[in-house]
Amino acid sequence: MFCGLGKNFTMTILDEAFKGSNRAIGRLISIVENESEGFLEILKKIYPLTGKAKIIGITGPPGVGKSTLVAQIAKIYLRKNKSVGILAVDPSSPISGGSLLGDRIRMTHLPLDKNIFIRSLSSRGTLGGISQATLNVARLLDALGYNIIIIETVGVGQDEVEIINVASTAILVLSSGFGDEIQALKAGVMEVADIFVVNKADHPDTSKYVSTIEKMIHQFSNRKAWTPPIVKTIALSSEGCEELIEKIEEHTNFCKNNKAMLEEFKQKYLLEIRKLVERKLTQELDYFFKEKFNLEDFYEKQSTKNSDPYSIAEQTILAFKSFLKT
Amino acid sequence: MFCGLGKNFTMTILDEAFKGSNRAIGRLISIVENESEGFLEILKKIYPLTGKAKIIGITGPPGVGKSTLVAQIAKIYLRKNKSVGILAVDPSSPISGGSLLGDRIRMTHLPLDKNIFIRSLSSRGTLGGISQATLNVARLLDALGYNIIIIETVGVGQDEVEIINVASTAILVLSSGFGDEIQALKAGVMEVADIFVVNKADHPDTSKYVSTIEKMIHQFSNRKAWTPPIVKTIALSSEGCEELIEKIEEHTNFCKNNKAMLEEFKQKYLLEIRKLVERKLTQELDYFFKEKFNLEDFYEKQSTKNSDPYSIAEQTILAFKSFLKT
Repeated sequence: MFCGLGKNFTMTILDEAFKGSNRAIGRLISIVENESEGFLEILKKIYPLTGKAKIIGITGPPGVGKSTLVAQIAKIYLRKNKSVGILAVDPSSPISGGSLLGDRIRMTHLPLDKNIFIRSLSSRGTLGGISQATLNVARLLDALGYNIIIIETVGVGQDEVEIINVASTAILVLSSGFGDEIQALKAGVMEVADIFVVNKADHPDTSKYVSTIEKMIHQFSNRKAWTPPIVKTIALSSEGCEELIEKIEEHTNFCKNNKAMLEEFKQKYLLEIRKLVERKLTQELDYFFKEKFNLEDFYEKQSTKNSDPYSIAEQTILAFKSFLKT
Repeated sequence: MFCGLGKNFTMTILDEAFKGSNRAIGRLISIVENESEGFLEILKKIYPLTGKAKIIGITGPPGVGKSTLVAQIAKIYLRKNKSVGILAVDPSSPISGGSLLGDRIRMTHLPLDKNIFIRSLSSRGTLGGISQATLNVARLLDALGYNIIIIETVGVGQDEVEIINVASTAILVLSSGFGDEIQALKAGVMEVADIFVVNKADHPDTSKYVSTIEKMIHQFSNRKAWTPPIVKTIALSSEGCEELIEKIEEHTNFCKNNKAMLEEFKQKYLLEIRKLVERKLTQELDYFFKEKFNLEDFYEKQSTKNSDPYSIAEQTILAFKSFLKT
């Protein structure tokens, strides 16, 4: 865990980060990711500066070529004079050892450029879980002036859906080498995707595979204002990547002008607040059980008559409410 | 959903259930499972009568022959003049349509006997989730005098681990036809099992498979007081089932006399209380957002200066605390 550094020191790092120090940005991200002392002050301070970046989420099963695709997208945006922040999120890893190695591999695809910032995230168990931590770090990069933020995550589970949901445009990468994988995809991943990419499109089964996905999209797209397009790419040779960028732009413009999308954005925001409230209450309950109310002692002291768990829970809630009043 | 029936009517059903009416037992279970009006009163009332039944949990991947095994175990206990309650829990099914059909199939294996009660559970989203609902219903059967309660659940995910954890003896059923399945088993399922069953033991690969499981058990058993035995069965012909019953009895006796196990039991109980408290708070928060505090209105009224989600969450928590005081 990161140690608290004091409020003034945190604000100094914030200043340095705004001056462009990569090292300061790295430290700020650590503070926000690990919810170290002062992280909420940072987030409140930078929030008014957010909302300018385009946040792109990319997920898909392992081996479909996501990292190569991310590198190509980053390169194209860099050529367009956009600055790019890449967050590689691995919800299954509590320590980012593996992800760090991943970063280096990715780095070799990318030009060394001060307009690019790459970082692995793998924190868990914090205030709002890994998706909230990812959102907080993305906001930080947004406030620091990065134009494009790419959130890459590996896998297609519930965690990944939540992380990708943080993005304004969510991309699901598949490839025809993974014919069986699509069967195993949870409906949630299919429905959260705004754009489908079929990578390794030089595979002979690609067009058959694209038809399968088209049918699956058709099953739920009539319920949505935006019908997700399918883009065929060969990330290794950059083929199709320009078209993908165009689709991302199309989706961004669509969202800006669509009432349903704006409503969806507001609902996401309200849900975030609700979750922050829930987590804060959980933290208070943790503190209550740790410092104020020894449940084990209380249980031992109960007369047998009242020792059913339902009654004890009711009495515990009353004690917790009294604690909250103080 | 089950409608509230009024407290007196609920208590009448309780009386009838104690007189042995299967129909009344079924209605009571519905009330407890769906957390209908009066369910907490029922649970508090019956709790002092619990603690006499043996609760056996059985899980494993689909197709290993769990239902046949459950039927054979039930038959043996019935022959020993024990009454048996069987709860088939399907956490993946919100409606028990499929499970009901499953019941009928299971019923055909079993003699029609008033000492046996079979029921499917599939409720979700209630006060403590499906594992708490299963525990509550098991307590009800326990209080009603059933000697043996068998909780059967299909699968090896987190839900199943939690459900099986309700039992005093947890059995993981595997079979050598499922060589790959064991690789996919989460450590949690392996560690929660008190007894391993390798069913369909007439399969030629059985002894090789048993060795594999032995090695896996060895990896974590040195941390536990009880080393899980492996029992080979052919459930279809009842082979090995008497030995399985013996191992269940051994485990029960071991738990009664083992300090670590008694401590584990207490910790489970305290965790249950903690979870009941958490769920109750979630319910209060739901009510707060539904009836007392319109988050959307609050958000709309915020000045832009304070409209970051972190500040709004803090103000919402303050409002919730005020609500709890009233």
